[in-house]
Amino acid sequence: MTKDTLVAQIREKQSFLCVGLDPDLSLIPSFLLEFEDPVFEFNRRIIDATKDLCVAYKPNTAFFEALGPKGWISLQKTLDYIPDTHFKIADAKRGDIGNTSRQYAKAFFESLSADAITVAPYMGRDSVEPFLEFPNKWVILLALTSNKGSLDFQMTPDQQEEALYEQVLRISQTYQGAERLMYVIGATHPDLIGKVRSLAPNHFFLVPGVGAQGGDLEAVAKQGMNADVGLLVNSSRGIIYAGNGPDFAEKARESALGLQQQMAALLSKMN
Amino acid sequence: MTKDTLVAQIREKQSFLCVGLDPDLSLIPSFLLEFEDPVFEFNRRIIDATKDLCVAYKPNTAFFEALGPKGWISLQKTLDYIPDTHFKIADAKRGDIGNTSRQYAKAFFESLSADAITVAPYMGRDSVEPFLEFPNKWVILLALTSNKGSLDFQMTPDQQEEALYEQVLRISQTYQGAERLMYVIGATHPDLIGKVRSLAPNHFFLVPGVGAQGGDLEAVAKQGMNADVGLLVNSSRGIIYAGNGPDFAEKARESALGLQQQMAALLSKMN
Repeated sequence: MTKDTLVAQIREKQSFLCVGLDPDLSLIPSFLLEFEDPVFEFNRRIIDATKDLCVAYKPNTAFFEALGPKGWISLQKTLDYIPDTHFKIADAKRGDIGNTSRQYAKAFFESLSADAITVAPYMGRDSVEPFLEFPNKWVILLALTSNKGSLDFQMTPDQQEEALYEQVLRISQTYQGAERLMYVIGATHPDLIGKVRSLAPNHFFLVPGVGAQGGDLEAVAKQGMNADVGLLVNSSRGIIYAGNGPDFAEKARESALGLQQQMAALLSKMN
Repeated sequence: MTKDTLVAQIREKQSFLCVGLDPDLSLIPSFLLEFEDPVFEFNRRIIDATKDLCVAYKPNTAFFEALGPKGWISLQKTLDYIPDTHFKIADAKRGDIGNTSRQYAKAFFESLSADAITVAPYMGRDSVEPFLEFPNKWVILLALTSNKGSLDFQMTPDQQEEALYEQVLRISQTYQGAERLMYVIGATHPDLIGKVRSLAPNHFFLVPGVGAQGGDLEAVAKQGMNADVGLLVNSSRGIIYAGNGPDFAEKARESALGLQQQMAALLSKMN
């Protein structure tokens, strides 16, 4: 997908919502367990119920891999089922030496139909660039993640020096194909999103951590939005597990609608 | 697998060799493509030809994922085929927020039969500890990798300060379950292996980069060995692609034997 298409979708739907698909057999409505592929059935109904309210879906590969080979089939079916109007993010946190990253890129961009993959930056340039060789495909690089462990390394050395997440933002913008880089910036660091925006003014941010992890949508939008909006705010558990009865898809829709309406208000205020 | 079992295997076989399984359909002998599962057939023959010479196998998940759901089946069959006397490393470079890392741990330690998984440290403590909750299962944390991109972030900030890989070594040893941590230390940094050993005296290192990437086995052993040997030296392409005709498994054995003999000499000299 091109950036122009993504931005046009955001404008049209008045939404920069990404719905995270973390299908856990112990959390999905029990009546779905009778279907041949409960995970796909769950995802399909969530997608049908929310697709007019969001611009992206983010299947989290861990929840599929935990089910073995049949989980990988559910992942493939899920990615194929997401409409092509939507930005398809494989949340896979991959990254390895060059010849291996190239195999991961093939896995997600060729064997599967993802538009983007999340990548961990620890191994540096030659672990990221192979993913950027695929036209119209995107890397979403971890910069400042939403979890508590983000304090361990990403925020070091200290306030006087350039922190690791700042190094990642600066150096990765010199990578070949960097125009198709986005960054993961957790909503749990609202005080830093403005700084991150100044370090990467033109890149999209994928922002997890709104909802279950406690991040604040308005603070994120105020500090993080740019002329292209530049934000994809993800909610996973807050939407997909809003209900767990026969009406779970309607509950998911209500939750997504609440976020979309807040986003529409923020977009009309700021653009 | 326990540490005692691994060390006993090393002593018995006079080998600290790990064979990396990176099965690439464009590189394996073409006659194997006629089999129903060429990847498994390739791995099976490599394992049969080398199992008395090595103590560990390291399937690289990227090469299986690139083949879609059937690749995941080949991975499962490969891990099941590796004898239980051998340490089974899923080279997967995973790591995510806590509830997601727990799903990856289930994928590799329960759905698949791996003893260990490689994990990227960028997201910190709560991304690693869920893997360490499984008895007798191991995390092999990326510290100083073998690729050129290791210079990008792992070696910063500079010589005066504590570099990122040193922070990773220091902080991760405080994690819950750290007695089941090993570290990836690339053979391409021979001048630093002694320093790394002083920072983590009791942990095993998984050392890639000998062979195709140019690392030197003797330098690694001299600086990296501890009282338990403490090293698993990996070779992938140098062994599995030593030949590509009908005799590829014999060629792989010859290559593995060459390394095992060097290892036996180093073990007798140093222990």
